[in-house]
Amino acid sequence: MAEVPVFDATAVHAAVDAAGAIERTRLAFDRYARGEWEMPAKVYVGAPPHGDFRAMPARGEGFASLKWVTSFPGNSQRGLPVVTGAVFLSSAETGELLAIMDCASITSLRTGAGAALSAQALATAEAASVGIIGCGVNGAWAARSLAAVGFGPGVCADRRSEAAAGLADELGWVEGTREEAARQDVVVTVTPGEEPVVLASDLRSGQHLAVLGADATGKSEVELAAIQRCRLFCDDWDQASSGGELTAAVAAGIVEPGRVTQLGEVLVGRAQGRSSPEEITLFDSTGLAIQDLGMAIAVYEAWRRGEVDAQLAAL
Amino acid sequence: MAEVPVFDATAVHAAVDAAGAIERTRLAFDRYARGEWEMPAKVYVGAPPHGDFRAMPARGEGFASLKWVTSFPGNSQRGLPVVTGAVFLSSAETGELLAIMDCASITSLRTGAGAALSAQALATAEAASVGIIGCGVNGAWAARSLAAVGFGPGVCADRRSEAAAGLADELGWVEGTREEAARQDVVVTVTPGEEPVVLASDLRSGQHLAVLGADATGKSEVELAAIQRCRLFCDDWDQASSGGELTAAVAAGIVEPGRVTQLGEVLVGRAQGRSSPEEITLFDSTGLAIQDLGMAIAVYEAWRRGEVDAQLAAL
Repeated sequence: MAEVPVFDATAVHAAVDAAGAIERTRLAFDRYARGEWEMPAKVYVGAPPHGDFRAMPARGEGFASLKWVTSFPGNSQRGLPVVTGAVFLSSAETGELLAIMDCASITSLRTGAGAALSAQALATAEAASVGIIGCGVNGAWAARSLAAVGFGPGVCADRRSEAAAGLADELGWVEGTREEAARQDVVVTVTPGEEPVVLASDLRSGQHLAVLGADATGKSEVELAAIQRCRLFCDDWDQASSGGELTAAVAAGIVEPGRVTQLGEVLVGRAQGRSSPEEITLFDSTGLAIQDLGMAIAVYEAWRRGEVDAQLAAL
Repeated sequence: MAEVPVFDATAVHAAVDAAGAIERTRLAFDRYARGEWEMPAKVYVGAPPHGDFRAMPARGEGFASLKWVTSFPGNSQRGLPVVTGAVFLSSAETGELLAIMDCASITSLRTGAGAALSAQALATAEAASVGIIGCGVNGAWAARSLAAVGFGPGVCADRRSEAAAGLADELGWVEGTREEAARQDVVVTVTPGEEPVVLASDLRSGQHLAVLGADATGKSEVELAAIQRCRLFCDDWDQASSGGELTAAVAAGIVEPGRVTQLGEVLVGRAQGRSSPEEITLFDSTGLAIQDLGMAIAVYEAWRRGEVDAQLAAL
């Protein structure tokens, strides 16, 4: 009988801050690009008519993790979380189950960190101002992550004015319109993806876009005419081409595999990042199991170092 | 913040006995055969040189489950469990995480129950005596499950005499040789699969074999000449043909898909089971995620009815 630490959202956030999450995300992309970490395709289990469950396993750095996460889009109307579930962390040396963690906090941390990492790698050297379109929990973590590595101030836009105002207050940024947010140096979109929130007419030369919201076929946050003006990057081509922002563009024949560069390839120096200060870069984030693994390792190691408490469960 | 019950092995066994496990296993096979339950292919995450992790999701009866389980074969030499991990149970109606459970106890319960279910469905009406070849934890649960539905007495065989003697004592059965066990009416094999433990020369007409041990390519418990004399059944053709007892026979061209019947097809009346009292039937069990789901639902429902206690974890 082992005692396994269980980390709720509060414990996860106490263990890893935005800057730490970015470093772990960088490590995950780097190691995966080098072939040192493994990530099978995520598995979907349909739960019609409500949504689906996703099983996302990964292995690296002597650990293995599995995230079990929902996407139940109608849940927000029912007052229930759209994204919920939990994460297992195991030793890849002994197989032992090491920890159980809240899923939504891990997901927000790594999603926000991915946006900031893409800006560090792909934005111009002068890029500073940020536009956040969609100020829910993942948009807020993208803003915090960007602020943690020196970007800002920013413009926060959301149909729900209180969400935008709350985030702006927290960071000392301002609330603004979608159009204002879409014209900043670094633009992050985290909306439900039901209609485009970045249009071709919004674009300025040298911008960097981090597109986080579209995570299933049929969802899109950037109109096709705008995608055509961007140099394209993604977290993982297999996921991005089958269920991300670029899916519709691939189907329309506008985007070919050779036109999209995986961020990890840039980080390890195997592919070129931004090629000029004028280029507009777009990073399509679908969310990777290796990112979850990176967060889970960070939480566990913080606990091992005594930096955070967790409830112990006999299992 | 929700409080999620965490069930260790003791709580799992307090919640579900062998007879209950068989009824839940029957339900799982029945519903899956009718297309009401869903089970994507299990996902393997390699952890060389120690073994691998498997993510096994399923959905049915308003629930969804995910088992995260190791197979680290060398662990027994290190004094560590070969099979370890945990199970998530969620609501397929709301997505909410409902429970976390020990994995090895769920696995043993459903594996033993599967053997007993196959004997109920496929053995002759007169079959009574049982031979258990391999008296580890899964062999013991197969014996308990068969005893719970009226089979026995039996002969317990194991290279480790103390394992065979302990199981025989528990059930009022006897310890015997491999050859003696292999000649009983119902023969269960649960060995590491490194060499055949049922030979063609052991077979008697009318026997039923439940072959549980071979769960990966290269493993086999029944020699090919014996397989050729049997009418063949399996839990799931996709799993059985790619990583079960029948894999080598398929590769050798001895077994074709049309020759193997899924147990669920027999249970729902879409396929014939045993066709004569003389026929020898062989059930290849690879272990299905739907069986894990059936056990997990049973444990959770017992807790909801107040029949078993569980530790609560904030998550």
